[in-house]
Amino acid sequence: MPLAAVDLPHAYRLLNHGPVTLVTSAHAGRRNVMAAAWAMPLDFDPPKVAVVIDRNTFTRELIEASGSFVLNVPCRAQAEVTLTVGSSSGRDPENGGDKLAHLGLQVLPAEKVEKVGVPLLAGCVGWLECRVVPEAHNQQRYDLFIGEVVAAWADPEVFRNGRWHFEQAPTEKRTLHYVAGGAFYATGEGVQAGG
Amino acid sequence: MPLAAVDLPHAYRLLNHGPVTLVTSAHAGRRNVMAAAWAMPLDFDPPKVAVVIDRNTFTRELIEASGSFVLNVPCRAQAEVTLTVGSSSGRDPENGGDKLAHLGLQVLPAEKVEKVGVPLLAGCVGWLECRVVPEAHNQQRYDLFIGEVVAAWADPEVFRNGRWHFEQAPTEKRTLHYVAGGAFYATGEGVQAGG
Repeated sequence: MPLAAVDLPHAYRLLNHGPVTLVTSAHAGRRNVMAAAWAMPLDFDPPKVAVVIDRNTFTRELIEASGSFVLNVPCRAQAEVTLTVGSSSGRDPENGGDKLAHLGLQVLPAEKVEKVGVPLLAGCVGWLECRVVPEAHNQQRYDLFIGEVVAAWADPEVFRNGRWHFEQAPTEKRTLHYVAGGAFYATGEGVQAGG
Repeated sequence: MPLAAVDLPHAYRLLNHGPVTLVTSAHAGRRNVMAAAWAMPLDFDPPKVAVVIDRNTFTRELIEASGSFVLNVPCRAQAEVTLTVGSSSGRDPENGGDKLAHLGLQVLPAEKVEKVGVPLLAGCVGWLECRVVPEAHNQQRYDLFIGEVVAAWADPEVFRNGRWHFEQAPTEKRTLHYVAGGAFYATGEGVQAGG
Protein backbone atom coordinates (compact mmCIF):
# COMPACT_ATOMS: atom_id res chain seq x y z
CA MET A 1 0.00 0.00 0.00
CA PRO A 2 1.64 3.28 -1.04
CA LEU A 3 1.36 6.08 1.49
CA ALA A 4 -0.22 9.32 0.36
CA ALA A 5 1.21 12.65 1.52
CA VAL A 6 -1.14 14.68 3.70
CA ASP A 7 -1.02 18.47 3.21
CA LEU A 8 0.43 19.91 6.40
CA PRO A 9 -2.59 22.17 7.11
CA HIS A 10 -4.72 18.99 7.15
CA ALA A 11 -2.34 16.96 9.28
CA TYR A 12 -4.21 17.77 12.50
CA ARG A 13 -7.18 15.83 11.16
CA LEU A 14 -5.28 12.59 11.54
CA LEU A 15 -5.52 13.14 15.32
CA ASN A 16 -8.55 15.39 15.70
CA HIS A 17 -10.96 12.55 16.49
CA GLY A 18 -8.80 11.34 19.37
CA PRO A 19 -7.33 8.02 18.25
CA VAL A 20 -4.68 6.15 20.21
CA THR A 21 -1.20 6.55 18.72
CA LEU A 22 1.99 4.54 18.54
CA VAL A 23 5.14 6.59 19.03
CA THR A 24 8.23 5.52 17.13
CA SER A 25 11.64 6.90 17.98
CA ALA A 26 15.31 6.29 17.26
CA HIS A 27 18.78 7.51 18.15
CA ALA A 28 22.28 6.31 17.38
CA GLY A 29 21.19 3.01 15.87
CA ARG A 30 18.62 2.16 18.54
CA ARG A 31 14.89 2.45 17.97
CA ASN A 32 11.64 1.83 19.79
CA VAL A 33 7.86 1.95 19.68
CA MET A 34 5.35 2.60 22.47
CA ALA A 35 1.64 3.38 22.73
CA ALA A 36 0.38 6.85 23.66
CA ALA A 37 -3.31 7.57 24.12
CA TRP A 38 -2.57 11.09 25.39
CA ALA A 39 -1.85 12.86 22.14
CA MET A 40 -3.72 15.72 20.49
CA PRO A 41 -3.33 18.47 17.91
CA LEU A 42 -2.03 21.76 19.29
CA ASP A 43 -2.05 23.99 16.22
CA PHE A 44 -3.20 23.98 12.59
CA ASP A 45 -0.51 25.56 10.43
CA PRO A 46 2.30 25.00 10.94
CA PRO A 47 0.78 21.95 12.61
CA LYS A 48 1.84 21.06 16.11
CA VAL A 49 0.96 18.19 18.41
CA ALA A 50 1.13 17.58 22.16
CA VAL A 51 1.89 14.11 23.52
CA VAL A 52 2.61 12.71 26.96
CA ILE A 53 5.78 10.56 27.09
CA ASP A 54 6.45 9.12 30.53
CA ARG A 55 9.89 9.89 31.94
CA ASN A 56 10.61 6.22 32.65
CA THR A 57 10.27 5.03 29.07
CA PHE A 58 13.02 4.10 26.63
CA THR A 59 11.11 6.16 24.07
CA ARG A 60 11.63 9.25 26.22
CA GLU A 61 15.38 8.69 26.23
CA LEU A 62 15.48 8.32 22.44
CA ILE A 63 13.26 11.35 21.78
CA GLU A 64 15.26 13.58 24.11
CA ALA A 65 18.46 12.48 22.38
CA SER A 66 17.25 12.80 18.78
CA GLY A 67 14.67 15.60 18.99
CA SER A 68 12.34 13.67 16.68
CA PHE A 69 9.46 11.20 16.84
CA VAL A 70 6.66 9.86 14.70
CA LEU A 71 3.04 9.52 15.81
CA ASN A 72 1.67 6.49 14.00
CA VAL A 73 -2.13 6.03 13.97
CA PRO A 74 -2.88 2.32 14.23
CA CYS A 75 -6.05 0.62 13.02
CA ARG A 76 -8.29 -2.08 14.39
CA ALA A 77 -6.18 -4.84 12.85
CA GLN A 78 -3.38 -3.64 15.15
CA ALA A 79 -5.23 -3.68 18.47
CA GLU A 80 -3.12 -6.54 19.83
CA VAL A 81 0.13 -4.92 18.73
CA THR A 82 -0.95 -1.61 20.26
CA LEU A 83 -1.58 -3.27 23.60
CA THR A 84 1.64 -5.29 23.40
CA VAL A 85 3.97 -2.39 22.62
CA GLY A 86 2.28 -0.40 25.37
CA SER A 87 2.86 -3.16 27.94
CA SER A 88 6.54 -3.96 27.43
CA SER A 89 9.58 -1.70 27.59
CA GLY A 90 12.17 -1.46 24.84
CA ARG A 91 14.65 -1.88 27.70
CA ASP A 92 13.26 -5.30 28.70
CA PRO A 93 15.86 -8.02 28.02
CA GLU A 94 13.15 -10.14 26.34
CA ASN A 95 13.00 -7.54 23.56
CA GLY A 96 16.69 -8.09 22.76
CA GLY A 97 17.34 -4.37 22.44
CA ASP A 98 14.83 -3.87 19.59
CA LYS A 99 11.14 -4.20 20.38
CA LEU A 100 10.18 -3.74 16.73
CA ALA A 101 12.39 -6.60 15.59
CA HIS A 102 11.37 -8.81 18.53
CA LEU A 103 7.70 -8.34 17.62
CA GLY A 104 8.36 -8.73 13.90
CA LEU A 105 6.97 -5.28 13.12
CA GLN A 106 7.58 -3.98 9.62
CA VAL A 107 8.62 -0.41 9.08
CA LEU A 108 8.80 2.12 6.27
CA PRO A 109 11.32 4.94 5.95
CA ALA A 110 10.25 8.37 7.13
CA GLU A 111 11.01 11.38 4.96
CA LYS A 112 11.84 14.32 7.21
CA VAL A 113 12.97 12.49 10.34
CA GLU A 114 14.75 9.77 8.37
CA LYS A 115 18.20 11.14 9.19
CA VAL A 116 17.85 10.06 12.80
CA GLY A 117 16.35 6.75 11.69
CA VAL A 118 12.84 7.11 13.14
CA PRO A 119 10.71 4.60 11.25
CA LEU A 120 7.07 4.67 10.18
CA LEU A 121 5.21 1.60 11.43
CA ALA A 122 3.76 -0.38 8.53
CA GLY A 123 0.07 -1.24 8.63
CA CYS A 124 -0.95 1.97 10.37
CA VAL A 125 -3.34 4.35 8.60
CA GLY A 126 -1.79 7.72 9.49
CA TRP A 127 1.67 9.03 10.31
CA LEU A 128 2.88 12.39 11.64
CA GLU A 129 6.62 13.03 11.50
CA CYS A 130 7.46 15.46 14.29
CA ARG A 131 10.40 17.51 15.50
CA VAL A 132 10.41 18.34 19.19
CA VAL A 133 9.79 21.99 20.06
CA PRO A 134 12.00 22.12 23.16
CA GLU A 135 9.99 23.06 26.26
CA ALA A 136 12.04 21.83 29.19
CA HIS A 137 9.53 22.85 31.84
CA ASN A 138 6.64 20.94 30.22
CA GLN A 139 8.82 17.91 29.59
CA GLN A 140 10.15 17.77 33.12
CA ARG A 141 7.03 18.74 35.05
CA TYR A 142 4.26 17.13 32.98
CA ASP A 143 6.04 14.62 30.70
CA LEU A 144 4.47 16.75 27.98
CA PHE A 145 6.18 17.06 24.61
CA ILE A 146 5.29 19.50 21.87
CA GLY A 147 6.18 18.56 18.32
CA GLU A 148 5.99 20.40 15.05
CA VAL A 149 4.65 18.18 12.31
CA VAL A 150 7.13 18.32 9.43
CA ALA A 151 5.57 15.62 7.23
CA ALA A 152 2.33 13.64 7.34
CA TRP A 153 1.13 10.55 5.53
CA ALA A 154 -2.00 8.45 5.33
CA ASP A 155 -3.36 5.25 3.87
CA PRO A 156 -5.44 6.69 1.02
CA GLU A 157 -8.00 3.92 1.39
CA VAL A 158 -9.18 5.55 4.63
CA PHE A 159 -7.83 9.14 4.53
CA ARG A 160 -7.80 11.29 1.41
CA ASN A 161 -8.57 14.89 0.44
CA GLY A 162 -7.99 15.90 4.06
CA ARG A 163 -10.72 13.63 5.46
CA TRP A 164 -11.18 10.20 6.94
CA HIS A 165 -13.30 7.91 4.74
CA PHE A 166 -13.84 4.88 6.93
CA GLU A 167 -17.29 4.09 5.58
CA GLN A 168 -16.15 2.54 2.31
CA ALA A 169 -13.12 0.73 3.76
CA PRO A 170 -12.75 -2.59 5.60
CA THR A 171 -13.73 -2.45 9.28
CA GLU A 172 -10.21 -3.57 10.16
CA LYS A 173 -8.91 -0.18 8.98
CA ARG A 174 -10.94 1.84 11.50
CA THR A 175 -8.84 3.72 14.02
CA LEU A 176 -8.85 2.87 17.74
CA HIS A 177 -9.67 4.82 20.90
CA TYR A 178 -8.10 3.47 24.05
CA VAL A 179 -9.94 2.96 27.32
CA ALA A 180 -7.87 0.85 29.73
CA GLY A 181 -6.86 -2.76 30.36
CA GLY A 182 -6.65 -3.73 26.69
CA ALA A 183 -10.11 -2.31 25.93
CA PHE A 184 -10.51 -0.05 22.91
CA TYR A 185 -13.40 1.37 20.97
CA ALA A 186 -13.18 1.43 17.19
CA THR A 187 -14.10 4.68 15.46
CA GLY A 188 -17.81 4.31 14.80
CA GLU A 189 -20.56 5.71 12.61
CA GLY A 190 -20.30 9.08 10.93
CA VAL A 191 -22.61 11.76 12.37
CA GLN A 192 -23.15 14.93 10.31
CA ALA A 193 -24.40 18.06 12.06
CA GLY A 194 -25.44 21.33 10.45
CA GLY A 195 -26.43 19.58 7.24
CA MET B 1 -31.02 11.43 35.43
CA PRO B 2 -28.91 11.71 38.59
CA LEU B 3 -25.18 12.13 38.03
CA ALA B 4 -22.86 9.60 39.59
CA ALA B 5 -19.58 10.72 41.12
CA VAL B 6 -16.49 9.35 39.37
CA ASP B 7 -13.54 8.47 41.61
CA LEU B 8 -10.78 10.96 40.82
CA PRO B 9 -8.21 8.29 39.85
CA HIS B 10 -10.69 7.13 37.17
CA ALA B 11 -11.55 10.61 35.92
CA TYR B 12 -9.02 10.41 33.07
CA ARG B 13 -11.07 7.61 31.53
CA LEU B 14 -13.82 10.07 30.67
CA LEU B 15 -11.39 11.59 28.15
CA ASN B 16 -8.99 8.76 27.41
CA HIS B 17 -10.76 7.65 24.22
CA GLY B 18 -10.49 11.14 22.72
CA PRO B 19 -14.06 12.49 22.66
CA VAL B 20 -14.88 16.07 21.73
CA THR B 21 -15.67 18.22 24.77
CA LEU B 22 -17.77 21.26 25.59
CA VAL B 23 -16.07 23.77 27.85
CA THR B 24 -18.26 25.69 30.28
CA SER B 25 -16.98 28.74 32.09
CA ALA B 26 -18.23 31.63 34.20
CA HIS B 27 -17.06 34.76 35.95
CA ALA B 28 -18.82 37.60 37.74
CA GLY B 29 -22.30 36.62 36.63
CA ARG B 30 -21.41 35.88 33.01
CA ARG B 31 -21.10 32.38 31.62
CA ASN B 32 -20.36 30.61 28.36
CA VAL B 33 -19.95 27.32 26.55
CA MET B 34 -17.71 26.41 23.60
CA ALA B 35 -16.56 23.23 21.88
CA ALA B 36 -13.00 21.92 22.26
CA ALA B 37 -11.79 18.87 20.38
CA TRP B 38 -8.22 19.40 21.56
CA ALA B 39 -8.46 18.08 25.10
CA MET B 40 -6.70 15.12 26.68
CA PRO B 41 -5.73 13.66 30.04
CA LEU B 42 -2.34 14.77 31.34
CA ASP B 43 -2.03 12.82 34.57
CA PHE B 44 -3.79 10.08 36.53
CA ASP B 45 -3.82 11.02 40.21
CA PRO B 46 -4.30 13.75 41.03
CA PRO B 47 -5.89 13.89 37.60
CA LYS B 48 -4.94 16.67 35.24
CA VAL B 49 -6.12 17.60 31.76
CA ALA B 50 -4.71 19.69 28.93
CA VAL B 51 -7.04 21.68 26.66
CA VAL B 52 -6.52 24.25 23.93
CA ILE B 53 -8.59 27.44 24.43
CA ASP B 54 -8.11 29.99 21.63
CA ARG B 55 -7.06 33.45 22.79
CA ASN B 56 -9.90 35.13 20.88
CA THR B 57 -12.72 33.32 22.66
CA PHE B 58 -15.03 34.66 25.34
CA THR B 59 -14.42 31.38 27.17
CA ARG B 60 -10.73 32.25 27.41
CA GLU B 61 -11.57 35.56 29.07
CA LEU B 62 -13.84 33.87 31.62
CA ILE B 63 -11.38 31.07 32.41
CA GLU B 64 -8.47 33.46 32.88
CA ALA B 65 -10.60 35.55 35.22
CA SER B 66 -12.08 32.70 37.29
CA GLY B 67 -9.34 30.08 37.17
CA SER B 68 -11.95 27.35 36.66
CA PHE B 69 -13.70 25.46 33.87
CA VAL B 70 -15.66 22.31 33.26
CA LEU B 71 -15.02 19.83 30.46
CA ASN B 72 -18.42 18.38 29.55
CA VAL B 73 -18.45 15.23 27.40
CA PRO B 74 -21.41 15.45 25.01
CA CYS B 75 -23.18 12.51 23.42
CA ARG B 76 -24.55 11.80 19.97
CA ALA B 77 -27.90 13.40 20.82
CA GLN B 78 -25.95 16.66 21.22
CA ALA B 79 -24.08 16.71 17.90
CA GLU B 80 -26.04 19.74 16.64
CA VAL B 81 -25.53 21.64 19.89
CA THR B 82 -21.83 20.80 19.86
CA LEU B 83 -21.47 22.23 16.37
CA THR B 84 -23.60 25.28 17.19
CA VAL B 85 -21.74 26.32 20.35
CA GLY B 86 -18.47 25.81 18.50
CA SER B 87 -19.56 28.11 15.65
CA SER B 88 -20.87 31.15 17.53
CA SER B 89 -19.15 33.37 20.09
CA GLY B 90 -20.62 34.19 23.48
CA ARG B 91 -19.73 37.77 22.55
CA ASP B 92 -22.02 37.78 19.46
CA PRO B 93 -24.95 40.18 19.97
CA GLU B 94 -27.34 37.47 18.73
CA ASN B 95 -26.54 35.48 21.86
CA GLY B 96 -27.75 38.32 24.07
CA GLY B 97 -24.83 37.99 26.45
CA ASP B 98 -25.62 34.37 27.39
CA LYS B 99 -25.14 31.68 24.77
CA LEU B 100 -26.54 29.00 27.08
CA ALA B 101 -29.80 30.89 27.64
CA HIS B 102 -30.06 31.86 23.96
CA LEU B 103 -29.77 28.23 22.92
CA GLY B 104 -32.07 27.06 25.70
CA LEU B 105 -29.40 24.82 27.20
CA GLN B 106 -30.16 23.38 30.61
CA VAL B 107 -27.50 23.30 33.28
CA LEU B 108 -26.81 21.59 36.57
CA PRO B 109 -24.80 23.02 39.46
CA ALA B 110 -21.18 21.99 39.75
CA GLU B 111 -19.81 20.97 43.13
CA LYS B 112 -16.23 22.20 43.40
CA VAL B 113 -16.29 25.04 40.89
CA GLU B 114 -19.80 26.13 41.87
CA LYS B 115 -18.52 29.19 43.74
CA VAL B 116 -17.55 30.86 40.49
CA GLY B 117 -20.80 29.71 38.88
CA VAL B 118 -19.40 27.36 36.24
CA PRO B 119 -22.30 25.11 35.26
CA LEU B 120 -22.46 21.51 34.15
CA LEU B 121 -24.24 21.14 30.82
CA ALA B 122 -27.30 18.88 31.17
CA GLY B 123 -27.61 15.96 28.76
CA CYS B 124 -23.88 15.30 28.59
CA VAL B 125 -22.55 11.93 29.73
CA GLY B 126 -19.37 13.01 31.55
CA TRP B 127 -18.15 16.09 33.40
CA LEU B 128 -14.72 17.09 34.72
CA GLU B 129 -14.62 20.09 37.05
CA CYS B 130 -11.19 21.68 36.71
CA ARG B 131 -9.11 24.36 38.36
CA VAL B 132 -6.49 25.99 36.17
CA VAL B 133 -2.88 25.17 37.01
CA PRO B 134 -1.37 28.52 36.02
CA GLU B 135 1.21 28.14 33.26
CA ALA B 136 1.48 31.56 31.66
CA HIS B 137 3.96 30.51 28.98
CA ASN B 138 1.78 27.64 27.71
CA GLN B 139 -1.34 29.79 27.81
CA GLN B 140 0.24 32.66 25.92
CA ARG B 141 2.35 30.77 23.44
CA TYR B 142 0.19 27.71 22.69
CA ASP B 143 -3.31 28.61 23.98
CA LEU B 144 -2.74 25.52 26.13
CA PHE B 145 -4.39 25.28 29.54
CA ILE B 146 -3.63 22.71 32.19
CA GLY B 147 -6.36 21.93 34.70
CA GLU B 148 -6.45 19.81 37.82
CA VAL B 149 -9.62 17.78 37.97
CA VAL B 150 -11.23 18.46 41.35
CA ALA B 151 -14.51 16.60 40.79
CA ALA B 152 -15.83 14.29 38.08
CA TRP B 153 -19.28 13.00 37.20
CA ALA B 154 -20.88 10.65 34.74
CA ASP B 155 -24.22 9.43 33.51
CA PRO B 156 -24.27 5.99 35.15
CA GLU B 157 -26.19 4.54 32.21
CA VAL B 158 -23.00 4.79 30.12
CA PHE B 159 -20.13 5.16 32.61
CA ARG B 160 -19.93 3.26 35.88
CA ASN B 161 -17.28 1.41 37.92
CA GLY B 162 -14.62 3.46 36.17
CA ARG B 163 -15.56 2.28 32.65
CA TRP B 164 -17.68 3.28 29.71
CA HIS B 165 -20.55 0.87 29.05
CA PHE B 166 -21.94 2.08 25.74
CA GLU B 167 -22.99 -1.35 24.53
CA GLN B 168 -26.12 -1.67 26.66
CA ALA B 169 -27.19 1.98 26.35
CA PRO B 170 -29.09 3.83 23.61
CA THR B 171 -26.97 4.77 20.58
CA GLU B 172 -27.80 8.42 21.25
CA LYS B 173 -25.65 8.27 24.39
CA ARG B 174 -22.44 7.37 22.54
CA THR B 175 -19.74 10.00 22.77
CA LEU B 176 -18.55 11.96 19.72
CA HIS B 177 -15.19 12.43 18.03
CA TYR B 178 -14.87 15.57 15.94
CA VAL B 179 -13.43 15.68 12.45
CA ALA B 180 -14.18 19.05 10.79
CA GLY B 181 -17.03 20.93 9.13
CA GLY B 182 -19.76 19.50 11.35
CA ALA B 183 -18.61 15.92 10.79
CA PHE B 184 -18.21 13.66 13.79
CA TYR B 185 -17.72 9.98 14.37
CA ALA B 186 -19.64 8.32 17.17
CA THR B 187 -17.69 6.05 19.49
CA GLY B 188 -17.99 2.63 17.88
CA GLU B 189 -17.67 -1.06 18.67
CA GLY B 190 -15.69 -2.32 21.63
CA VAL B 191 -12.45 -4.12 20.74
CA GLN B 192 -10.76 -6.20 23.45
CA ALA B 193 -7.08 -7.04 23.09
CA GLY B 194 -5.01 -9.35 25.27
CA GLY B 195 -8.08 -11.41 26.14
